[in-house]
Amino acid sequence: MVILMINKLIDGIKKKNAPIVVGLDPMMKFIPAHIKDAALKEYGETLEGAAEAICQFNKQIIDHIYDIIPAIKPQVAMYEQFGVPGLAAFKKTIDYCHEKGLIVIGDVKRGDIGSTSEAYAVAHLGKVSVGNAKISAFDEDFATINPYLGTDGIKPFLDICKQEKKGVFILVKTSNPSSGEFQDQLVDGKPLYELVGKKVDEWASRCMGDNYSYVGAVVGATYPEMGKVLRKVMPKSFILVPGYGAQGGKADDLVPYFNEDGLGAIVNSSRGIIAAYAKEEYAAFGEHNFAEASRQATVDMIADINKALDKK
Amino acid sequence: MVILMINKLIDGIKKKNAPIVVGLDPMMKFIPAHIKDAALKEYGETLEGAAEAICQFNKQIIDHIYDIIPAIKPQVAMYEQFGVPGLAAFKKTIDYCHEKGLIVIGDVKRGDIGSTSEAYAVAHLGKVSVGNAKISAFDEDFATINPYLGTDGIKPFLDICKQEKKGVFILVKTSNPSSGEFQDQLVDGKPLYELVGKKVDEWASRCMGDNYSYVGAVVGATYPEMGKVLRKVMPKSFILVPGYGAQGGKADDLVPYFNEDGLGAIVNSSRGIIAAYAKEEYAAFGEHNFAEASRQATVDMIADINKALDKK
Repeated sequence: MVILMINKLIDGIKKKNAPIVVGLDPMMKFIPAHIKDAALKEYGETLEGAAEAICQFNKQIIDHIYDIIPAIKPQVAMYEQFGVPGLAAFKKTIDYCHEKGLIVIGDVKRGDIGSTSEAYAVAHLGKVSVGNAKISAFDEDFATINPYLGTDGIKPFLDICKQEKKGVFILVKTSNPSSGEFQDQLVDGKPLYELVGKKVDEWASRCMGDNYSYVGAVVGATYPEMGKVLRKVMPKSFILVPGYGAQGGKADDLVPYFNEDGLGAIVNSSRGIIAAYAKEEYAAFGEHNFAEASRQATVDMIADINKALDKK
Repeated sequence: MVILMINKLIDGIKKKNAPIVVGLDPMMKFIPAHIKDAALKEYGETLEGAAEAICQFNKQIIDHIYDIIPAIKPQVAMYEQFGVPGLAAFKKTIDYCHEKGLIVIGDVKRGDIGSTSEAYAVAHLGKVSVGNAKISAFDEDFATINPYLGTDGIKPFLDICKQEKKGVFILVKTSNPSSGEFQDQLVDGKPLYELVGKKVDEWASRCMGDNYSYVGAVVGATYPEMGKVLRKVMPKSFILVPGYGAQGGKADDLVPYFNEDGLGAIVNSSRGIIAAYAKEEYAAFGEHNFAEASRQATVDMIADINKALDKK
């Protein structure tokens, strides 16, 4: 029997005692020279060369952290910029994460009108029909989606999640500096992000796993006061929290994103983990041991967040 | 010298007397059996087979309409659902359009926080660095983008447009039934889409071509009253108008999307053109002559819109 992905995610978080996800956003500047050089030597200064460097970099990081975290979140934009070979590296990364037993959250932030959203949902979470065959294109377990187009842009994702036992995280309040420009505007005296949060709660209520919904939300770590409010607005939704570390979010600030049961949030770090070797704190590992540095940074992040949660 | 793409688009619209763009959204159900069968026979019931069918279908349509329209708008979701081979077909379609002198509007609706938006902008409009090489990944001329994350999600696109002489269309009011759920919410007594429109106008003012900005907007044909208001809010922006035909928008309703100079809007039709052969009106062409049916539907659409504009 296929287990509902949100239940599997919660199970993974509990077993590994790690409410965290690592963002695999392999910008070229994060990839150590010896990996880049080898890949470009083999494939030339081509998109294929870049894609090979990404795959090698990702594989080593995954190999060093898969046993201590429940999930990985590749940011598709970082692959898409290398065109078709880059997206082949995205797919390879997803497959390799699955081989290693990791849950994959595709950070794709897609969203469109109904029929088009359906195609996106099929691309990332579903199966496409070709003749009599049904084929998974990218096959993530969760996807992030953008709500600007309203219910009919969201519904095809929910339908396919139901069918495939997968899930989504809907952008509610993003972590970036100008996220307030539209998201914080007051509508009937309340910010737009709260209205979006209420909609997420409505959708979530109709899409339940055991204790949590498979319709989650994205709320940036950089706005803890808003996170506190949104936690209450969407009690059944898991919150995917970007912005910890490099973007400025601190562990203590994240406590209100969790529910009383100690669950309900999963905190992402990307740069802080995958480029740990470039930080003073982990410089002793050296560039060649970048993946060991990533493991240590992951261990430290888990401890940092659990310590904050223990104080709760 | 590289001509600014918005100037080139306007030039194309004038020369061909056709303020229209054809949406190449090749859903499998639109592709005639003889094309699908041949492709699946060669490649099997695989993503590669589907991608081959899409390429053959697109090529014939492009061959039959490239001389009478200025631009093509492929919807990336329809390709993305066929995974890496599907995206290779997307890229091939873009390249073939360029060979035929067509301007390509990538309907990608991307948008994220700053550094991630930069990667998307590079992917679709810019060039990515690999060693000392600079390579175009998908190489559209324009891209559609989602504003929910605010200025810092938009700015990287504008920077790359400036550099590459390309352009964007920012979602303001979308054509789908539930677009009002968030977009119509009142902020200080005015709908959110107007606030987004004002921001688009601000961005547009700083990014001018000869008479129009290379920062355009998307406003659905299905909301003509709002189109009328938004035309005035964003006088310097070209409006990309989806929703004509299959979604219900009529030519007369579209007149207010244009400025007094007869320019300022470009109307999209997808299904209405590429699946014309399946409509009663063009059934006489027969499935084998689907591309001739598409040409006739394009000719009719141009006449329909120009007739409405002449009455102005």
